[in-house]
Amino acid sequence: MKYKLLLVSIFAIFIALSSAQTEPIQAVAPVMDINLAEVELGKMLYFDPRLSLSGFISCNSCHNLSMGGTDNLPTSIGHGWAQGPINAPTVLNSSLNLAQFWDGRALDLQDQAGGPIANPGEMGSTHALAVDVLKTIPGYVYEFKQVYGTADITIEMVTDSIATFEETLVTPNSDFDKWLLGDSNAINDYELAGYNLFKSSGCVACHNGQAVGGNSFQKMGILEPYQTTSSAEGLAGVTGKDLDRFKFKVPTLRNVELTYPYFHDGATYSLTEAVDIMGRLQLGKHFTDEENAQIVAFLKTLTGDQPNFNLPQLPPSVAQTPHPKPFN
Amino acid sequence: MKYKLLLVSIFAIFIALSSAQTEPIQAVAPVMDINLAEVELGKMLYFDPRLSLSGFISCNSCHNLSMGGTDNLPTSIGHGWAQGPINAPTVLNSSLNLAQFWDGRALDLQDQAGGPIANPGEMGSTHALAVDVLKTIPGYVYEFKQVYGTADITIEMVTDSIATFEETLVTPNSDFDKWLLGDSNAINDYELAGYNLFKSSGCVACHNGQAVGGNSFQKMGILEPYQTTSSAEGLAGVTGKDLDRFKFKVPTLRNVELTYPYFHDGATYSLTEAVDIMGRLQLGKHFTDEENAQIVAFLKTLTGDQPNFNLPQLPPSVAQTPHPKPFN
Repeated sequence: MKYKLLLVSIFAIFIALSSAQTEPIQAVAPVMDINLAEVELGKMLYFDPRLSLSGFISCNSCHNLSMGGTDNLPTSIGHGWAQGPINAPTVLNSSLNLAQFWDGRALDLQDQAGGPIANPGEMGSTHALAVDVLKTIPGYVYEFKQVYGTADITIEMVTDSIATFEETLVTPNSDFDKWLLGDSNAINDYELAGYNLFKSSGCVACHNGQAVGGNSFQKMGILEPYQTTSSAEGLAGVTGKDLDRFKFKVPTLRNVELTYPYFHDGATYSLTEAVDIMGRLQLGKHFTDEENAQIVAFLKTLTGDQPNFNLPQLPPSVAQTPHPKPFN
Repeated sequence: MKYKLLLVSIFAIFIALSSAQTEPIQAVAPVMDINLAEVELGKMLYFDPRLSLSGFISCNSCHNLSMGGTDNLPTSIGHGWAQGPINAPTVLNSSLNLAQFWDGRALDLQDQAGGPIANPGEMGSTHALAVDVLKTIPGYVYEFKQVYGTADITIEMVTDSIATFEETLVTPNSDFDKWLLGDSNAINDYELAGYNLFKSSGCVACHNGQAVGGNSFQKMGILEPYQTTSSAEGLAGVTGKDLDRFKFKVPTLRNVELTYPYFHDGATYSLTEAVDIMGRLQLGKHFTDEENAQIVAFLKTLTGDQPNFNLPQLPPSVAQTPHPKPFN
């Protein structure tokens, strides 16, 4: 019995090491070393529309954890029904990105979390107002005191706890990861053919690592220009360099079956079409229908464990809490 | 041992009977006899913004189960940021209402559920479109087949399952209910004084039963006219009778601490002010600050168990699914 266990263990280590060394994609690691009280506070804030001026829009409105961490819209709806300029990227596995937003203008999740709160076309509030609201709510005062040792809430504490919650939103245990970790039956031959095409065609040059993307900026439209009505300029807006025009952070392909519509302008809802466009514009490849279908089949094996927790209950406002202002 | 158990049982029955017979408010009964598969389907639909034209608004947007089953806004935000005409009532314990909506124009929860989907100023879709969307989604087709024995989804199945989910949204185990059921320490003397005032002042004439309201229509502004900019006419809009002008369904006071702002026009966020206005306009009573505070303390004992379930995961759309149209 012990002998058998030893053999199995050695085999598992061998598989893990060999796949880790030879595959350009790595399995999503589960969450380790996290502050649970901070996660719970961040989860409440993530779902709390009182961080918006209207009292109607929360982080979860556009990064909906029931829908792959996105809103499944080409561009988002913001305060006053403002039309956003760019597709909302998924929050799932976003801790694995080299930077946040399509143009990488936020260094990390904490830096990102403050953006939408104070963006007039998104949540439409200000950091000062958002903090003022939280400071009046006894349930939050208690939680912040527990986590940060003080009731003097700051925007840094707010974004820190939201970011910590977001760090838990990784999606391990996809069929592809099971295959990577040694379960050779976790994906079928058709899906495996798709993965081999994904590698041999060059997709993997940009879509690699744990997140299958998210770790570099690349020009959208290398071999052919990308046709779009979107005015987004990408990295150039951050660096000011003409060379960086239309360079965007390569999106993660984890859970891509759930994160439609695709591209920074959300131009297509079809994964088949997205694969076709990427092949032609980025690689100069015209995938046959069969090849395309194989790649799509592979991509669908990247759907992992979705967020799994109780709907949070938010502490009620009190008489002194600043009122939401949806219509003025 | 058996003798002791018998005594305890007799005592429990005595308490239950005596309080049931003498108190005008009854404890919220937990859910019994419910179809769990229907509940799970209804829960997904309740959280699914694809029932709206924009793909952005779900039942949960305005009847938010993280926030007392309401949006905590005076009037709701609908399609295109439309301003709703009336305060969104809580969905919690709504199965106990004699009818739905403030004017009672829907007979039951199933009748109600179809309203917002097709209201141009709410979810902005049509029943036909909502059903067309669901029919293309394999995950839903499977669920409907499981529950209704057919994949030929109808709007009646949609509203039936949403209503069944909503029937689970009762909130038993409030401190007041524990007191009603015999735990004399569940509320303190101050709260009990508030309850006695609530009864002796006449509040209980309209706010009674399991839901502490929800079981009659009453005129808003009996002894003094109610000042409001709202154009809502109440029951008269349904019956056509002049006598029914400004008659509204008496709202439930269950979880009233969470369901601010108050009244059909959401005129006040303050429970203290709401009690004051109700006393003067409906009963001709001017509560002292102390009396008001006691009544408010009693009302806060009506907060029961909030919805407690995992955030639902929604089945993804496919290429054939009609796209949401947020901006046209």
